[in-house]
Amino acid sequence: MTPMETAVMREKPVSTTSAAHAKAIELCKHVLRMTTQSGSGHPSTAQAIAHIAVDLMYRKMRYDLSDPWNPNSDRLVLSIGHAVPMIYAAYADLGGVVGASQTDGRPLTVDDLASIRELNSVLDGHPNPAEGFPFFDAATGSLGQGLSVAAGLALAARLDGIQKNIYAVVGDGESREGQVWEAADFVVDHKLHNVCAIFSCNEHGQAGPVSSQQLPEAIAAKMSAFGWYVQEIDGHDPEAISTALDKHGEQPKPTAIVARTVKGWGVELMLGKNFHGKPLSSEELDKACAELDATGQKLGATEEMSFTSPSPAAGKANAPSAIKLDSFEESLKRVGLNSALADRKLATRVAYGVALVALGDADSRIVALDGDVSNSTFSNMFEGAFADRFFECKIAEQNMITAGAGMAAAGKIPFASSFAKFIARAVDQIDMAVISRANLNVVGSHSGVSLGADGPSQMAVSDVAYFRSMTRVDDGTGSPACHIFHPSDPISAFRCVELMANLKGLCYLRTHRPAASFLYDFDETFTARGCKQLRKGDKLTLVSSGYMVHTALEAAKKLADSGVDCNVFDAYTLPLDAEPIFEAARQAGNSILVVEDNYSGGVHAELAEAAAETGEVRVFGLTVNRIPKSAKSAAEVFNYVGVGGQQIFDKATELTNE
Amino acid sequence: MTPMETAVMREKPVSTTSAAHAKAIELCKHVLRMTTQSGSGHPSTAQAIAHIAVDLMYRKMRYDLSDPWNPNSDRLVLSIGHAVPMIYAAYADLGGVVGASQTDGRPLTVDDLASIRELNSVLDGHPNPAEGFPFFDAATGSLGQGLSVAAGLALAARLDGIQKNIYAVVGDGESREGQVWEAADFVVDHKLHNVCAIFSCNEHGQAGPVSSQQLPEAIAAKMSAFGWYVQEIDGHDPEAISTALDKHGEQPKPTAIVARTVKGWGVELMLGKNFHGKPLSSEELDKACAELDATGQKLGATEEMSFTSPSPAAGKANAPSAIKLDSFEESLKRVGLNSALADRKLATRVAYGVALVALGDADSRIVALDGDVSNSTFSNMFEGAFADRFFECKIAEQNMITAGAGMAAAGKIPFASSFAKFIARAVDQIDMAVISRANLNVVGSHSGVSLGADGPSQMAVSDVAYFRSMTRVDDGTGSPACHIFHPSDPISAFRCVELMANLKGLCYLRTHRPAASFLYDFDETFTARGCKQLRKGDKLTLVSSGYMVHTALEAAKKLADSGVDCNVFDAYTLPLDAEPIFEAARQAGNSILVVEDNYSGGVHAELAEAAAETGEVRVFGLTVNRIPKSAKSAAEVFNYVGVGGQQIFDKATELTNE
Repeated sequence: MTPMETAVMREKPVSTTSAAHAKAIELCKHVLRMTTQSGSGHPSTAQAIAHIAVDLMYRKMRYDLSDPWNPNSDRLVLSIGHAVPMIYAAYADLGGVVGASQTDGRPLTVDDLASIRELNSVLDGHPNPAEGFPFFDAATGSLGQGLSVAAGLALAARLDGIQKNIYAVVGDGESREGQVWEAADFVVDHKLHNVCAIFSCNEHGQAGPVSSQQLPEAIAAKMSAFGWYVQEIDGHDPEAISTALDKHGEQPKPTAIVARTVKGWGVELMLGKNFHGKPLSSEELDKACAELDATGQKLGATEEMSFTSPSPAAGKANAPSAIKLDSFEESLKRVGLNSALADRKLATRVAYGVALVALGDADSRIVALDGDVSNSTFSNMFEGAFADRFFECKIAEQNMITAGAGMAAAGKIPFASSFAKFIARAVDQIDMAVISRANLNVVGSHSGVSLGADGPSQMAVSDVAYFRSMTRVDDGTGSPACHIFHPSDPISAFRCVELMANLKGLCYLRTHRPAASFLYDFDETFTARGCKQLRKGDKLTLVSSGYMVHTALEAAKKLADSGVDCNVFDAYTLPLDAEPIFEAARQAGNSILVVEDNYSGGVHAELAEAAAETGEVRVFGLTVNRIPKSAKSAAEVFNYVGVGGQQIFDKATELTNE
Repeated sequence: MTPMETAVMREKPVSTTSAAHAKAIELCKHVLRMTTQSGSGHPSTAQAIAHIAVDLMYRKMRYDLSDPWNPNSDRLVLSIGHAVPMIYAAYADLGGVVGASQTDGRPLTVDDLASIRELNSVLDGHPNPAEGFPFFDAATGSLGQGLSVAAGLALAARLDGIQKNIYAVVGDGESREGQVWEAADFVVDHKLHNVCAIFSCNEHGQAGPVSSQQLPEAIAAKMSAFGWYVQEIDGHDPEAISTALDKHGEQPKPTAIVARTVKGWGVELMLGKNFHGKPLSSEELDKACAELDATGQKLGATEEMSFTSPSPAAGKANAPSAIKLDSFEESLKRVGLNSALADRKLATRVAYGVALVALGDADSRIVALDGDVSNSTFSNMFEGAFADRFFECKIAEQNMITAGAGMAAAGKIPFASSFAKFIARAVDQIDMAVISRANLNVVGSHSGVSLGADGPSQMAVSDVAYFRSMTRVDDGTGSPACHIFHPSDPISAFRCVELMANLKGLCYLRTHRPAASFLYDFDETFTARGCKQLRKGDKLTLVSSGYMVHTALEAAKKLADSGVDCNVFDAYTLPLDAEPIFEAARQAGNSILVVEDNYSGGVHAELAEAAAETGEVRVFGLTVNRIPKSAKSAAEVFNYVGVGGQQIFDKATELTNE
């Protein structure tokens, strides 16, 4: 700031500043009290954002305390999730509404603050709308993700024609996370100039001071280089904060406010020695509150802060409604792929593209995101049909997933695709989306080892185990936290995508590179938890999913030729109702052989866990048994990793000869 | 460079340029031929780095073609892994040695190039030292990871007192990955000025042109803002490349060379239309080779390029040797934690710190990395004892894991720690480390739900399923690709860490926040695939791991009081030899109840898969059955997610009453 500017600032009426300081101090005291009462939490990080929270929540943000679900509201994403006690304190002071839904909302009170982190409290340890705090759009606390949430919210607002600002409060140490820079690029690419990132630079991490790479001047230089309009301010100067926030939107760029803040602001014993992640003792609390009062007097903090935030127009989120697709044949014709009807062959990844276009026709909430591989995942078919609803995320999967979760929070139905291998970049982001109960569809193409020549750096083999771990978990409403769809042919792929669009929560679609023959009639129906019997036999039951179903069917034919008739099941989804498979197995020698093109922990584990409870049916598995490498064909790799046609044949023969 | 040196360089005969062009063209032809012969690959991306590869591999890099294992050599990390045909072509032209080890090395020949991507070839689809190409240190191909590998190699070189340069070739589109920026920060933080990042800016991604955020000028501005010494050059101008590479090391900064390159350089039909990831047809190949020859004539490319790379001093990597730790008691005293001996209580995360210090005493190869949570993971105990071998990675887990893999490639034994939840940030990086067969130890603290109050954003619950998927996979030498250690008490934790230091490949340690009582004698021994029986009974067999073992033991006591005597097993590692558990179960009613503080896919799946093959023993599981939330105590959360003491009691009672 120039000396003149400082002088001007000093001349501004003291009342605004005075009131803001008074409110910040009041909220700091709430924060200290609630964390001491709770016995855990991060008061010092929260104190650092006191003045920023006051200016945003009492003055700047256009929102409706009585209706946090109003889609016309400005939004606040607290990327630095552990600072949340400050937001809770402000929201309680203001009496903002909390609750799981509009029908059971009630105003939060200051008395509620003591319940932070309790099992039955809406005030979870870190932000989480799913526990009843709808002021937030997404769970945060795993750092570096908030700016991506903000980007997703901003994209959704643009699609809905809503003018609103999205504020993301980001920590300085947190900005070490690569995802922050993925989001910074993405926001610029998509000209999301309504996004305002506010960096709270308190210069302390958990284990020590932040690196010189994360000092305010470094963050400012980086954000400038990334194309943002940057303002550096004192994060405890109410006037500076107001001025900076009011300048947001003036430039044809997104805004970054780099605010120098103080960890443990206002409380001597929390300063300078990196007081992190612990509450004060009861004695310390009294001393600290007295100290804050003294600080207030020094700052002339006497005025009452009034709530002057503007109100948004009333608005209502669209009610969810079922989406129904046309026939597969019509949908193929729609995208000019009639030839597949003659060939009776199409890769499941192409069928995904076909379905996505059909979904786009059926419902305007459908949006697609991709990470520079849309011509491999075939989300480019959707891009061709609905350019305004397709979002190129470039090679940055973490941001893609979290931006998708942000769009879901705003009522969109996002499909985010990349190679399944690269989806693994965003596992923690997917975890956070699940915690948010985001209605997110993730699509991994080129999954398993069937892509052959490209080698293991492009092959997803742990993905099924990871996603399956969530399929047996209740999301709190009786539904699985995740559904996996792993279709074997284009018709089932088409219908699985339709199912995904209608299921809430996380769905994961696993598609494959090679073309796959039609296995089903066009009018075949598929369901969550379902499976399909493709072949009947009396000696053994083969179960597979995805591309491997074709290999299993070939093996079954060869086995039949050798006198061993096998059931063959297509386990196209997890979680799976195993009873039809067990019933068939009981009529066919009581043995099941599961074949998968992934590491263990998938369908084999699913059936083994169910079977082991009774011991009635025996379950064996052939899963990828070694780290894969390149080879010319899918069959060669299958063979190399122990799941080739001959290996299925041999194992089946062994099992039926026992 | 001094002005005199620059002048000398300028006076170099033009033949250098001529020869470099000639060699680049020769290599481009190899690249086109080998990819056409293989029927897949990314020739156009490879052509873009032709001149860079020539200058590095024929002139600049100090390395030994006959001994790629020599630790004194400069290293090249091809972050943009799909450009690998160019490196293969140069290395074959030079006759560099390939092979799985020094004893079976042989020079690569130009004839070998046609075998690229074949099952038995050392030339995998993307770089992978583990398949017999030791010129590389790590598998790449999942983008954005190479600069972190380079950082790890540079750290290891510094520890070993070796002066060498590490070159990382990074793509422009690739630099969208956040990890690139995590690595950029890390290299500056640790003053790894011997790292030289060369960006190949061909301005094309896979699905379209790169974003304006990834244009050469944008990358240059960003790298400057991140504190690098930046040079922008024409990436097909041999003199410019030489000059830029020779300037590396002149500044007290790491160097970024931002090279404008041409995708499909020299071949008209590959230019301008984003020719990506496909080889030429045979006819196109002939035309392209003729065109390259014509380009060569235009450029006066007639000279023979000679190999003038300097030779490093001969050197040998240290042979692996066993590491043995002192007694747990002595190790506790070493770090001043004698009090734990009286309390007979210590969190497993603290025991990890104790073991890590003991390892540091025992072997200088032990290094530790942490992501700004060393005072939570207790790697700060190692930092206190061995500051020079501790590397603070700040809040950037992706870079931490890959830098660890880089250090492992240079013979170090890295332990990389963070909250288990945040380890999920680096799943793809761990996958790549496994493909590299990196000797990497990953440590996740605060795992499961026992941390209570902080809530789900800090709780790892899918981690066991993910890591277990790799435990049943052969690394190619008969060993599991991964071992999980999930100790229940500090003594077993201490010994598990000792095991990890001695096991090759990936190991994952899961530690917990709360203090845990001693369950074992100080001289108890633990083994890979082992488990421990903690209690004998005749009615049921309880199996658990980690902190839950204590809950299981308490439940067993209560069950005993009610007349139901249970076996209790501590399944402290996966993969697991289940036979001792099954044997005990057969003597105790044939039923097993597994209790885990994670989502399904862990010990329950392990035992169910084994049991379901015979049906002899029944296996049931209680795993985290809903998305967790904050609560005041571990017990409250256990109860909320279905794995509380009472729930174990009830399920056990139900099973024994059947």
